[in-house]
Order: sequence, then structure tokens, then C-alpha cells
Amino acid sequence: MEKPYVLGIDIGGQTAKCGIVNARGEVLAQTILVSNKHDDAPSFVEALAQTLKKLILDADLEGQIRGIGVGAPNGNYYTGEIKQAPNLSWAHEGNVPFAAMLSKAMDDMPVALTNDANAAAVGEMTYGAAKGLKNFIMITLGTGVGSGIVIDGKVLYGHDGFAGELGHTCAVRGGRRCGCGKLGCLEAYCSAIGVARTAVEWLDQHPEESSLLRLRENVTSKDVYEAAKAGDKMALEIFEYTGSILGRSFADFIAFSAPEAIVLFGGLARAKEFLTAPILEAMNDNVLPLWRDKVKLLYSSLSESDAAILGASALAWNL
Amino acid sequence: MEKPYVLGIDIGGQTAKCGIVNARGEVLAQTILVSNKHDDAPSFVEALAQTLKKLILDADLEGQIRGIGVGAPNGNYYTGEIKQAPNLSWAHEGNVPFAAMLSKAMDDMPVALTNDANAAAVGEMTYGAAKGLKNFIMITLGTGVGSGIVIDGKVLYGHDGFAGELGHTCAVRGGRRCGCGKLGCLEAYCSAIGVARTAVEWLDQHPEESSLLRLRENVTSKDVYEAAKAGDKMALEIFEYTGSILGRSFADFIAFSAPEAIVLFGGLARAKEFLTAPILEAMNDNVLPLWRDKVKLLYSSLSESDAAILGASALAWNL
Repeated sequence: MEKPYVLGIDIGGQTAKCGIVNARGEVLAQTILVSNKHDDAPSFVEALAQTLKKLILDADLEGQIRGIGVGAPNGNYYTGEIKQAPNLSWAHEGNVPFAAMLSKAMDDMPVALTNDANAAAVGEMTYGAAKGLKNFIMITLGTGVGSGIVIDGKVLYGHDGFAGELGHTCAVRGGRRCGCGKLGCLEAYCSAIGVARTAVEWLDQHPEESSLLRLRENVTSKDVYEAAKAGDKMALEIFEYTGSILGRSFADFIAFSAPEAIVLFGGLARAKEFLTAPILEAMNDNVLPLWRDKVKLLYSSLSESDAAILGASALAWNL
Repeated sequence: MEKPYVLGIDIGGQTAKCGIVNARGEVLAQTILVSNKHDDAPSFVEALAQTLKKLILDADLEGQIRGIGVGAPNGNYYTGEIKQAPNLSWAHEGNVPFAAMLSKAMDDMPVALTNDANAAAVGEMTYGAAKGLKNFIMITLGTGVGSGIVIDGKVLYGHDGFAGELGHTCAVRGGRRCGCGKLGCLEAYCSAIGVARTAVEWLDQHPEESSLLRLRENVTSKDVYEAAKAGDKMALEIFEYTGSILGRSFADFIAFSAPEAIVLFGGLARAKEFLTAPILEAMNDNVLPLWRDKVKLLYSSLSESDAAILGASALAWNL
């Protein structure tokens, strides 16, 4: 009989979320490991393997795990390596052959690795809002802006495994400096950090305008969301601005791969009541007539607490 | 024994070029039919079928043709239809089920149809500069700017068959009006017509600057090319400007599909001595560090007179 469970691991800058998942996309058991206390990859992998073995043991599922799916920043599906991930203390330099190391530490259990946005796309296709879709683009609006592109039911990895860096396409020519070093990236405007930067800029540029955001010392995207919910004019306009930048970028993405839908995921996607209208307006204004009003805008349907684990775990079904 | 020959047809606004091609990519016989003298699709298809039958008969190859590949503006691979092609007199309105009509007129010979840029990509992959490449983007720089995107050795058609309209991604926000109705499309700057528009604009904006281009009444991209060859400063700057717009757009395309190469084709690609340096500079300045100096810029290696027929014919090998 085929082994009926998979492990999903979502590795972030602070924590690694680990869970055991069944074929219906239910997380049966989960645990969290801190991921920023390790100086080198071997010690992190060793700690992770201990955590996973205990999770399996406690759930009484020894011998029933088919494989492990891992989502990690700069994870490469082809090579199984994590390549220079700035926010991982044990992987910020060079290439870490993570999939091979973890497989070895887990008694040769098969391991598939990809970046977090691709994992989210696979998760959404396997269990979520993109179920049944063969051509869609997943955009993750979190601390950064990530993307996972699905074509004919498969994640697009490209020649080198790094395809789908849509957060670093140019949204504003000669605009803000992005964390990657380039100017005007989509991520510099439409991530959680980007929204906060817009707020700080606008508060500074319009000292005459009153806003609830002036009451905050370090404005976050969450503050902007709460102010918008309270009807604050500037906060509402920030979401309109953010949505219109997203929408016109989406128009260009549509011209590339002609997807059936664009699926939004991540913390900032919670502001859908403020983002949907400006995104759709800018998207339809900037797309070729043949796609006007034809491409759906969807939001992730996975529960936020499970989504990261589910996305990573979905990779493991094909192992 | 398998039939050893295919027919390739490239349909343009003025003519349809037809040829018989063997597996080595040699055009064994060819002919041209005017394509703008027909008011409706049935009469054009009938004339085309007569032309093809005569071509086969004259080459003494009856019963040896495997199938027909057709490249046509707005051709849809999935449906076999030509959808509202503005420059085809018999197809400028509605959808013409061209593949089915031609197949019927050719005694049920199988017909594959796609747009001209996708056909060029298949041709380049089968016979030309992209031979052996599995992930590349073909950009056709002709009257317009077209594109054919190849992923894992297959043309990207997308959900609806119309993927790869990179000529209508935004190159200059709020820029020139494009033929499609949108503002600032890549095609409005980097097609033959776009280059001529740049020349007209610059001559007008810089009346103090002398240029060979002032001697022309209606400046064409060919005039700009010849002036650049003669060392004309403005003409050289026009190509620098055009190349840098192409290069920064290519940087965004790379972030999408992580190709091994970008392949240029079409009349304007003949100006490669003036375009290559500014394209590469802008491309590498605007791409994420991981792709800097990694993605090749190639030029079509197919002889210009055969390329259109070869591209279309290559589609037919999989029929």
C-alpha cells in the first residue's frame, strides 16, 4: 500500500513550521522550530530532523510518510539547494544542498524543495482556490512580493529553477530602491513593507492632511489596514494606489502567460475589501482588449495557519 | 513509411508564402499567393488550396505530405481559428475557423495553426539558433513586436491560446499610444514603426540638431538604419534608445520565465550591430543579480527568405 501521509515544512526567517498532512489536505499534527538560532546548516538540519522524527513518533505514524516537501526562501527545485537566502542565518552565504542533507538526516526519506511562493501555488492548486485550474499565477503579498506561476498544471521553474520572480519586475521606472538593489520593483510598493513606505512618504509629503496614521510612531501595513477600516481617507488612498500598481503589473503578467486567474495570498491579501476594486480597474485598463474582464482575481482559500505547511507538503505527493 | 515532407504557410497582410519542407529544414519548393484580394475567408481558402495542390503536383510529391503548419496573425493553436486580424481583408471581423476550413479543402490533410511569432519560435527551435534550447523567448521585431515563449521545449499558449503578447506589455508608463489602443506598449517604441516614430519625434523636438534623417520626407526604420551605418549621431542614439527599452523589458521577461536565451528575429534585428550593446547593458542593469550576464542574447540564424515558411512548417511535424 502506498504511504498515505506527507510532511510539509515552511522555512522562514524566524521559524520553521512543520506538519503531517493527509491526501485531503488536513494537517494532522504540527510543530514549530526556531530557525534563527543556528550558525550553520548542519546543526539546523540536525535539529529539524529530530523535530520531525518526534512529530512522526508522537502521531504514531512511523513508516507511513511518503516524503517531505519544503518551501524555503531561494529554494531551487532542480538542485535542491537554498541559494544565498539573506534572512536565514545558516544559509545567507553560498549554496546549501538542503534537500540532500535533510534526506540523509531522515534515513533517505525523499525530499522536494522549492521557494515559498511556488510552494504556495502548489498548495493552492492541490487543496485551495486554484483547485482545477491549470494556468494561474499565484502572487504572495507578504513582507515581500513573491510569485508562483503554474502552466498546464505544472509550476514554472525555467532554465535554472528560479523562474517566477515577479516581485522584482519593474512597477515604477526609476522608482523606490528595493531590497534587492534595483529601482522601482513591484515588491518595493506592494509588499507589507512597501505599503508602510508609501504611508511614511505620503505623511511626509502632505503635512497638511490629517490622518489616523499620524498617531503611529512606526507605521506598519497593519496600521494602514486598520485606519482604512476606520474610514481614514489617506489609508484608503494608499490601498487604492497599491491596488492600481498591482493591477497594471498583473496586466503585463497576463500578456505573458494568459492565465485563467491570478490568485492572491499572504498577509496583505487580507485587505481584499480595499484592494479588489483598484486591482481589477487597473488590470482591465492596461490589458489587451481580448483579456478585458476575462481573467479572474481570486484569493487564497486556505486557512492562514495551515497554508504554509499545506503548500510545502503538496510538493511531496509527486515524490 | 511515415510521410517525409510538410507544408509551411506564412500568412501576412499582403501575401501568403507557401513551401514544401523536409526534415532537415530545407525548402524544396515554394510559391507566393496574394492574400489581400479576397473579401471572404472561403474564397481565400479555396485559392490557397488550389495553390498548394499545384505546388505538390509540380514537385511530384503527391501522397508524401504529412501535414500543414500555418502561421497567421491572431492565429489560435487551440481552436485553429484566426480571431479578428485587422490586417487580413478576409478575417478582420469575427473568428475564422481557418485550420478546419483548410483541412477540408485539402482532402482532410491535418492542419496546425498558430500566430506568426509562435511559428517563428518553433522554427528557430527546430532548425535555427535555438536548436537544443528548451527555455527561450523569441522576440520578433518587425512592423510590430511579437513574441513566442518556449518553456520545457514547448510553446506557451496559456489558458486561451493567446499567451506571449509581450509587444503589448508596458515599456513606458503613460507613453505613446500603441496601435492596440493602450499607452506605452513595447511595440510602440521597438517595432519598425516605433523606431520611425522616435525619429519623427526627435527631429521635431531637436530642430537645432543636424541629421541625415532630415533629408527624408517620411522617415522609416530602414532610413534610420542606413543613417546609423553612415555614422549619423541622431540615428545612432535612436538605436541606443530603442535597445535600452528592449533590454529593460527583457529583464522583466527573464524574471518571469528564467529563459536560457532571448532570440531576436525580424527586419529590425538586422540592426544588431547597433542594438546588441544597449540591449545587454539595460538587460543586465535591470535584472536580479542572479541572472546578471547569464542570459544569452541570440539572433535568428534562419535565412530571411525561408524563415517564415520554415517556422510555420515546423508546427506540422507533430501532427
